[in-house]
Amino acid sequence: MRHLLANSDAEIAPVFDSMSYSVFAGGKRIRPYLTLEFARILGAKDEAALSFAAAVEFIHTYSLIHDDLPCMDNDDFRRGKPTNHKVYGEAVATLAGDALLTLAFEAIAASGADAEQIRDAVLTLSRAAGAVGMIGGQIIDMSSEGKQISFETLTHLHQKKTGALIRAAAELGCIAAGASADIRSRAVEYAEKIGYAFQIIDDILDRTGDFSTLGKSIGSDLENGKTTFLSFMSIDEARKTAERITGEAVMAVGNMPDCESLCELAKYLLARNK
Amino acid sequence: MRHLLANSDAEIAPVFDSMSYSVFAGGKRIRPYLTLEFARILGAKDEAALSFAAAVEFIHTYSLIHDDLPCMDNDDFRRGKPTNHKVYGEAVATLAGDALLTLAFEAIAASGADAEQIRDAVLTLSRAAGAVGMIGGQIIDMSSEGKQISFETLTHLHQKKTGALIRAAAELGCIAAGASADIRSRAVEYAEKIGYAFQIIDDILDRTGDFSTLGKSIGSDLENGKTTFLSFMSIDEARKTAERITGEAVMAVGNMPDCESLCELAKYLLARNK
Repeated sequence: MRHLLANSDAEIAPVFDSMSYSVFAGGKRIRPYLTLEFARILGAKDEAALSFAAAVEFIHTYSLIHDDLPCMDNDDFRRGKPTNHKVYGEAVATLAGDALLTLAFEAIAASGADAEQIRDAVLTLSRAAGAVGMIGGQIIDMSSEGKQISFETLTHLHQKKTGALIRAAAELGCIAAGASADIRSRAVEYAEKIGYAFQIIDDILDRTGDFSTLGKSIGSDLENGKTTFLSFMSIDEARKTAERITGEAVMAVGNMPDCESLCELAKYLLARNK
Repeated sequence: MRHLLANSDAEIAPVFDSMSYSVFAGGKRIRPYLTLEFARILGAKDEAALSFAAAVEFIHTYSLIHDDLPCMDNDDFRRGKPTNHKVYGEAVATLAGDALLTLAFEAIAASGADAEQIRDAVLTLSRAAGAVGMIGGQIIDMSSEGKQISFETLTHLHQKKTGALIRAAAELGCIAAGASADIRSRAVEYAEKIGYAFQIIDDILDRTGDFSTLGKSIGSDLENGKTTFLSFMSIDEARKTAERITGEAVMAVGNMPDCESLCELAKYLLARNK
């Protein structure tokens, strides 16, 4: 990813510094890992898959920078480090987010993949990241603040807010490899299920984790009166649901060749403590 | 453009309302006009050119929404109407900007143009809009605040902040039409020159225009101690420079067939009072 963030022009250095700060602030890299693993298993060219994976991570990173802004979630810490606007100021953080969002599409277009694959990847990623996808999820999340929402709305929220991009990450791996529609639909099923389980575990960790491991505040959901999966079930029931869904995710890709890494990822996400 | 902003999901309606508010708030539509006119003159398919033009206008609109935010220019009015965040709040305005930026690339990918044209258009637009283009210009603008900058930096700033997208608008028309490299380089020359003249006129209007015509505050550059072209020349000299550059722009496209509309646009931008 580093060459996409290289810049030798001192005048515009602040925005590149701000972009790099958040891109290289750690994180689990689940989304680019998904893109790269599906691409590898299905036999894609390396260079294109790397660019697609970078694009997905840029979208994820921009969304975190903007979500943390004072006018949104107003968070001071992310992954145990000060949030982007705490270091670079709100204006540069806003622009760095915009620039990463834009760079995602540049990375795809400059990937060296076939033009048809690029078209498919841009369409898939833009729909997943846009107003009917990730941004729509954020809108539902904001309008749900401070009020009890239904289980259906909660599921809908997460499918958009985090699910859409996780799903697109898997799809971009399939696109880079020129996979069949059948393979792609199984990748989508896997991604949707691990995304669902991921969110349930997130809600559990917000209740049971600790700051030093998670790198963010604990109990904020309860404090903010937020509806989570734990508004509808006990921690034990939630964990069992996540286990069942993870099992279904593993089954969806179980007969792909060399799929152990995807199975391991699903189990890692289930067992994670941060 | 309207079908790209259609939405039937009530849960995410706020972001679509906010996007539509700014897209349909008027404005001169110079950028999409450029895309459509180059496409028409050079013989492009209508549908693809319309999508490319919409994409350019979405990028322009998102940049205005984010520029107006309190953490950036903190403007209350734009085109004589309250700015987006004044109507929808900062959070929704930020997300509406993000969504329009994302939608620009969806519009290109879903345009029905050939895959090679889509790749070229995504690459051209993302570079023009990104950290080395429009966003870089905004960064230079911010870091120049309250201090005298050189004529070279000022030119550099405008080439990026407004010039890059105007240039991309012309290029996207050429791409939609499958124009030759020679035609495209003349379109670029035309666009760069009208962009340059546009900015000089902008600086003159900030000094000499009035609120009711412009729909925004007057004299703000002087008030903010901002370096403009009028920091280096008189109003009269600035107007003569704009006239000369406009003449060069007209010459760049003068031997394209059916180029009257482009010549008219250049002259209209020179003579405008808003």
